[in-house]
Amino acid sequence: MHHFFVKPENINEDRVKITGSDVRHITRSLRLDVGDKISVADGIGKKYVVKIIDTQEDLVLGEIQKEFQVEVEPEIEVTLLQGLPKSKKMDLIVQKCTELGMDKIIPMETRRTVVKLKPSKAKRRQKRWQKIAKEAAKQSGRAKIPTVEDLIDFADLELIINNYDLILLPWEDEESIGLKKILKSSAEHNNRILIIIGPEGGFDSEEVMEAKELGAKSVTLGPRILRTETAGLAALSMVLYELGDLGGE
Amino acid sequence: MHHFFVKPENINEDRVKITGSDVRHITRSLRLDVGDKISVADGIGKKYVVKIIDTQEDLVLGEIQKEFQVEVEPEIEVTLLQGLPKSKKMDLIVQKCTELGMDKIIPMETRRTVVKLKPSKAKRRQKRWQKIAKEAAKQSGRAKIPTVEDLIDFADLELIINNYDLILLPWEDEESIGLKKILKSSAEHNNRILIIIGPEGGFDSEEVMEAKELGAKSVTLGPRILRTETAGLAALSMVLYELGDLGGE
Repeated sequence: MHHFFVKPENINEDRVKITGSDVRHITRSLRLDVGDKISVADGIGKKYVVKIIDTQEDLVLGEIQKEFQVEVEPEIEVTLLQGLPKSKKMDLIVQKCTELGMDKIIPMETRRTVVKLKPSKAKRRQKRWQKIAKEAAKQSGRAKIPTVEDLIDFADLELIINNYDLILLPWEDEESIGLKKILKSSAEHNNRILIIIGPEGGFDSEEVMEAKELGAKSVTLGPRILRTETAGLAALSMVLYELGDLGGE
Repeated sequence: MHHFFVKPENINEDRVKITGSDVRHITRSLRLDVGDKISVADGIGKKYVVKIIDTQEDLVLGEIQKEFQVEVEPEIEVTLLQGLPKSKKMDLIVQKCTELGMDKIIPMETRRTVVKLKPSKAKRRQKRWQKIAKEAAKQSGRAKIPTVEDLIDFADLELIINNYDLILLPWEDEESIGLKKILKSSAEHNNRILIIIGPEGGFDSEEVMEAKELGAKSVTLGPRILRTETAGLAALSMVLYELGDLGGE
């Protein structure tokens, strides 16, 4: 079934209004018509099976057939704080982390960040990443679109870190404490988890010190060196496997 | 430390011969010289710290300073049998799975495979993927280069399936049995694991039936739909997290 997002205000009792570019997509590209069924999510947690009951030039009207208590979203919320990587790697990170179940992605400038984005360009990029997240959320059947926030600086870490129960900092010089050990030993109250990944050159040791002073736990992801665009999705897979819904019950 | 692969026959007692394009890379690009140290692996499981003792036009000679009982390789061997995807997705799959610790990758044609490769083109692709695996193995500091085998047909599954202790078939119509349940319930003797991933359109149900008759277990990877290029690396991350070395001890 084809999957679409609508704004919560477009859902009223058992009626769903689809507007914007999705109308053309539904009626022209997919050639769906009255009686056909689609899957609709409100982007903040609910998902519906909807039967099309009317199509107009700029509106598709649907009737809700079934509502899901959305089990497609993990119970724990994981945020990726990603050191800004080079080229199109961030596109890949946003897409894959959305599929896997990330809740939020925040790009960050660090000392070793090579790419420097002016504010106007950073804003354009943020919009582009948010669009990629929406598209990936649609394809993977999610009930929620992960938020891609504006680029922050490493110094802003202290402003956001208190929002999380567990702060994980995978670091290649950390050899003694594995991610697994941390997850197994503190599984009780970790509903909001922050994963901090450095850019291509990694974090410098001062940054690691600062993050640890703020409460981050440095961990190893294992004996092989993962590229910056691989580390986040591997860590997310492991976190959601251990504490969330990845890999099933 | 920069990392290089040499053939096992180029290692004799405490001497290492580096030949081919790596010589130019070491002496010209990296400007390393006598006295500098590099990391060398023999590609079949051993890793060394090597001091350069001589450089010539077409040879770098090194002395072994330290040998590792290579703990960078997972104890369990995981093979990915990947339904041939479109465009450059296979490049990404090979690169990421190599970083994460895959042992072998076998591309496979299935009923819903869109791309049809002639034998000569399939061979060229195999060489290209093998090269990507070598490069990724180097970057991630692996002791072993994963093998990328020749393209096989789904009908050949029965010829290889007996080489494995556990055969996992992630399938989106499988809702009851999670990968986690299978891994937790059968952790004892699974030294060789096969993960079978369909192409973009997935497997058809007949293929799933055939694979199950041959001993594959169909599993769900969780409630979200993963793209073909994401499913293998997510499954590998979970398998190596549960039974291997990913995420540390």
